[in-house]
Amino acid sequence: MNQTEISVKIILDRWDASIKNLTSLLENLSDAALMKEIVPGKNRGIYLIGHLIAVHDDMLRLLDMGEKQYPELYEPFIKTPDNVNTAMPSLIDLRKMCIEQTNYLKQKFDKLSAIEWFDKHTAVTSDEFKTEPHRNKLNIIVTRTSHLQYHLGQLQLLK
Amino acid sequence: MNQTEISVKIILDRWDASIKNLTSLLENLSDAALMKEIVPGKNRGIYLIGHLIAVHDDMLRLLDMGEKQYPELYEPFIKTPDNVNTAMPSLIDLRKMCIEQTNYLKQKFDKLSAIEWFDKHTAVTSDEFKTEPHRNKLNIIVTRTSHLQYHLGQLQLLK
Repeated sequence: MNQTEISVKIILDRWDASIKNLTSLLENLSDAALMKEIVPGKNRGIYLIGHLIAVHDDMLRLLDMGEKQYPELYEPFIKTPDNVNTAMPSLIDLRKMCIEQTNYLKQKFDKLSAIEWFDKHTAVTSDEFKTEPHRNKLNIIVTRTSHLQYHLGQLQLLK
Repeated sequence: MNQTEISVKIILDRWDASIKNLTSLLENLSDAALMKEIVPGKNRGIYLIGHLIAVHDDMLRLLDMGEKQYPELYEPFIKTPDNVNTAMPSLIDLRKMCIEQTNYLKQKFDKLSAIEWFDKHTAVTSDEFKTEPHRNKLNIIVTRTSHLQYHLGQLQLLK
């Protein structure tokens, strides 16, 4: 393995392990627990789950891997802060989406070669990318893993 | 920049940004807030701060960058779970250590060239490293950033 391949492996391994932690947490948290606020006045578990699925769904666009699977999640879980009056999919549906999404993203990610992860993501222009070559697809995985870990730390408190 | 340099930049940028979030959170959390449990029965803020400093201190050893700065933190913040009866440094001292450590680690990290981040860390043998070349110094930064983000998500709830 060269440095390019090693870097991609390190970063994707961390993503995979974080997603595995999310899957396992979801298996161990009841619907009742997920309907509770992590801390009084802060987000509920259900909101964080929907938020994570919505943010990961948006990675498809950023990574130039096609259309979102669940565009309907943008409004309740990204645009709007958590609110008991917001219409949301049920936890049965969110749990299903989360598993489907994990498999779908994995299939998409597996298709990229190591060097292709260093291509620009779609939120940067070709001109910007000339002077900022770190704004690549791999960087999207790094920042989204970071974001996922942040919310995993919070979801863990519901156990 | 080649792929090696880009990978190192992406990973160290994420570490730096996460440490900056920690510094800023510490500036915005009072001592009274940090003495509280994040959620009843779970870790207090002070424990998480000490835990993060202790884990980051251990990176010096793993990265072959010399002795720990605060070996006395291992016992209360890594070996022992949070307990009000454990003797701990004061928040004044922990806040000071956190700032000192940030500068100290930055100095150490800045000395490594991009390619040196792909050298093995000290917890892997040379034989293992031949077949597992991803167990390098860069990987230590990736996993510790992930760990830091996890606890940042929790500390944020004290605000």
